[in-house]
Amino acid sequence: MARIHLIIILLVISSTSSSSSSLREQEEDMIKALPGQPQVGFSQFSGYVTVNESHGRSLFYWLTESPSSSHTKPLLLWLNGVFKPTKPTLSFILCNRPGCSSIGYGASEEIGPFRINKTGSNLYLNKFTWNTEANILFLESPAGVGFSYTNTSSDLKDSGDERTAQENLIFLIKWMSRFPQYQYRDFYIVGESYAGHYVPQLAKKIHLYNKAFNNTPIINLKGFMVGNGDMDKHYDRLGAAMYAWSHAMISDKTYKSILKHCSFTADKTSDKCNWALYFAYREFGKVNGYSIYSPSCVHQTNQTKFLHGRLLVEEYEYDPCTESYAEIYYNRPDVQRAMHANLTSIPYKWTLCNMVVNNNWKDSEFSMLPIYKELTAAGLRIWVFSGDTDAVVPVTGTRLALSKLNLPVKTPWYPWYSEKQVGGWTEVYEGLTFATIRGAGHEVPVLQPERALTLLRSFLAGKELPRSY
Amino acid sequence: MARIHLIIILLVISSTSSSSSSLREQEEDMIKALPGQPQVGFSQFSGYVTVNESHGRSLFYWLTESPSSSHTKPLLLWLNGVFKPTKPTLSFILCNRPGCSSIGYGASEEIGPFRINKTGSNLYLNKFTWNTEANILFLESPAGVGFSYTNTSSDLKDSGDERTAQENLIFLIKWMSRFPQYQYRDFYIVGESYAGHYVPQLAKKIHLYNKAFNNTPIINLKGFMVGNGDMDKHYDRLGAAMYAWSHAMISDKTYKSILKHCSFTADKTSDKCNWALYFAYREFGKVNGYSIYSPSCVHQTNQTKFLHGRLLVEEYEYDPCTESYAEIYYNRPDVQRAMHANLTSIPYKWTLCNMVVNNNWKDSEFSMLPIYKELTAAGLRIWVFSGDTDAVVPVTGTRLALSKLNLPVKTPWYPWYSEKQVGGWTEVYEGLTFATIRGAGHEVPVLQPERALTLLRSFLAGKELPRSY
Repeated sequence: MARIHLIIILLVISSTSSSSSSLREQEEDMIKALPGQPQVGFSQFSGYVTVNESHGRSLFYWLTESPSSSHTKPLLLWLNGVFKPTKPTLSFILCNRPGCSSIGYGASEEIGPFRINKTGSNLYLNKFTWNTEANILFLESPAGVGFSYTNTSSDLKDSGDERTAQENLIFLIKWMSRFPQYQYRDFYIVGESYAGHYVPQLAKKIHLYNKAFNNTPIINLKGFMVGNGDMDKHYDRLGAAMYAWSHAMISDKTYKSILKHCSFTADKTSDKCNWALYFAYREFGKVNGYSIYSPSCVHQTNQTKFLHGRLLVEEYEYDPCTESYAEIYYNRPDVQRAMHANLTSIPYKWTLCNMVVNNNWKDSEFSMLPIYKELTAAGLRIWVFSGDTDAVVPVTGTRLALSKLNLPVKTPWYPWYSEKQVGGWTEVYEGLTFATIRGAGHEVPVLQPERALTLLRSFLAGKELPRSY
Repeated sequence: MARIHLIIILLVISSTSSSSSSLREQEEDMIKALPGQPQVGFSQFSGYVTVNESHGRSLFYWLTESPSSSHTKPLLLWLNGVFKPTKPTLSFILCNRPGCSSIGYGASEEIGPFRINKTGSNLYLNKFTWNTEANILFLESPAGVGFSYTNTSSDLKDSGDERTAQENLIFLIKWMSRFPQYQYRDFYIVGESYAGHYVPQLAKKIHLYNKAFNNTPIINLKGFMVGNGDMDKHYDRLGAAMYAWSHAMISDKTYKSILKHCSFTADKTSDKCNWALYFAYREFGKVNGYSIYSPSCVHQTNQTKFLHGRLLVEEYEYDPCTESYAEIYYNRPDVQRAMHANLTSIPYKWTLCNMVVNNNWKDSEFSMLPIYKELTAAGLRIWVFSGDTDAVVPVTGTRLALSKLNLPVKTPWYPWYSEKQVGGWTEVYEGLTFATIRGAGHEVPVLQPERALTLLRSFLAGKELPRSY
């Protein structure tokens, strides 16, 4: 297996382009301006990297460089994962699945420099953008997600963890060959939700790759960070049931029934467990499980104006309907032209999530804990964070899973601060830092952009989160 | 005991005033206008009722009538209880204590018609005021709290549950004699926090009183409602520890230590339990335990503008520093004159909470569950509600306590709706309705005024909470 891995990588390297051709490719990928974009002081690039020639699998990326000292700032790869249903479903507790766009979620709602307005006509600036701290590389992964595509349609039905990790590595090697200025640059991977699989799996691939080429590890991986990420199916699901009860979303009866009938040790469940989960689903109601104290998108004219019962100012308000704006914007032909996207006329519209990929995921590792164990020993900087108002991949599940790693405590639990308020809580273990973000849902930077930025700064600096204000 | 009780009441009744004197007293109590008050379409009265002649104990009330059909709308007595520390303390888990003002909290922050502006110079309207639904009677109780006073200073050091309930009953009987138009009117009691003691204890006194005078029960008690109220010290404390862990405020280690060393079956705790609670206190940090996702008051110029990381509009913003405005306003001599308050020149300033009363509480029933059991059988309408983002008297504790009542389920757990969003969850038992308010802290109407109003309307109508929008 290790030998096959090495052969693939050698093939990749032999096919990478020369220095002059890389400059030409960069020029081709440069974004002049996005339609409706305000003026900015940083460069952007986007385009495709073929990761499998024979099947025609090609991954789409969007690089938003830093407006200052871009050439010395680290490179940060951002990955989204999860399927986001409009209504809560059994997948809340049963299983979290991948297939969603890093451009639609990460870039356009969370950490990217731009937000899309309600009509999809214009972009406006995100004042808490992460590219002030690093050069951010958004990747649509695996093939089939967002603008990434495959010419072999059957590929959509057999995507899985292993191929995704392998092709994400191939993408990176080939992308760095196109952008040699980022080779050897400090490199970090950050992702959320099902990227709880992608991120450590890719980190492990890179670690093995670097070990094989230890004289010149062109991918200078320093560490990774996972937010509200899948950790371990057993503990995540048990934690979700505990979360639902302790946050008063389900009845005592249903909770007891879940604990009694659901072992959560395998993907298959018993009929009695399914019934218990069905009742939980009914009891949740039309709440936004990804951010349980936020309003749901109900397409009411003035409903977006209220958060926590309080009137909000236009542009910085929380908007639960934002996803539909991305679907308008990224399907505009002028936007696709400006982004060098959809050059091959993909036979379906750009969507936030690919449901075929989502419903046909082949292999999904049951637990990430062994990889964490392995990589904490490898000296990588590893942070796990959790927005504490997410009921889908909740903080309770993450806590249960992390405690099973049994890592020695280096800095005991303390509240950390951001903008004179408790930003969340943190505990530092040997080889891993855990941090919660207070009042943040599944997509941490959506509701708590300032706290998310404080978290990123501490992570990149390799420092513990602030103890005071 | 029952005989003594009856004798006291007979004495009270014999001393009550005649019809003509009651009209004169009402006139004296009428508020012409409060300083800085906007124009309103309802009447207000305030003043004192002596509840113990020999000690000179006198309770202060403020009645805000309904702007429409006041004469047919029910009368609702509102009671506050808890001490609200500026910083979280061990009392979070150890014990909740009384001694705070219904005028400072209930009337001025929660359900009253007016809010106080930042400088204490003016009042503005609360658009979710409860007096649209009922005539609201705010009571400062016991003597020593707010404008209520005693001429026997030692009284402050031996207040307790029993005397408070007894004197609240005496207050009501004498107040109804002054306001005979409210005799026989549908009457409800609502309170929060430590009023979880006052409310059922007073309801029980009224129930016994009515039984003794069953031909003419001048206090026509229909039901009561308790929000984030003390239920049972054991379950409230255990629930607080569970809440702190499941909401990621304390470490695994501290949580395990609390569960191991704190039995919570008595007010005295072991040294090991005290240490565990001390660590919990340290770990909480400067978070607002009464509303864990809201900002704390840190007196930063622009800090009140952010809730959940979002910019808020001036007047309807959540303001964590609001309590200090009440202390300015109610100490103004012109305000006191307008309210007929402090006529005897109380030798200390009006404060939100009386710390002498708070620190010297004599008797505090360990559990309210026996009273609930008794009163559910008496056919009263009993509702228990819980804002689910309060860590002090949290929903987990209330759930644990209610489950011990073992009442048969009449309507199973379901999400209820307000303004097209899940307002919370509810379950209806034989004799008692439980409801949570989503995203509300300890003072439910502060962060969720619309949801609180939906709750009140359903309660007063004797209807289940809305199942859809």
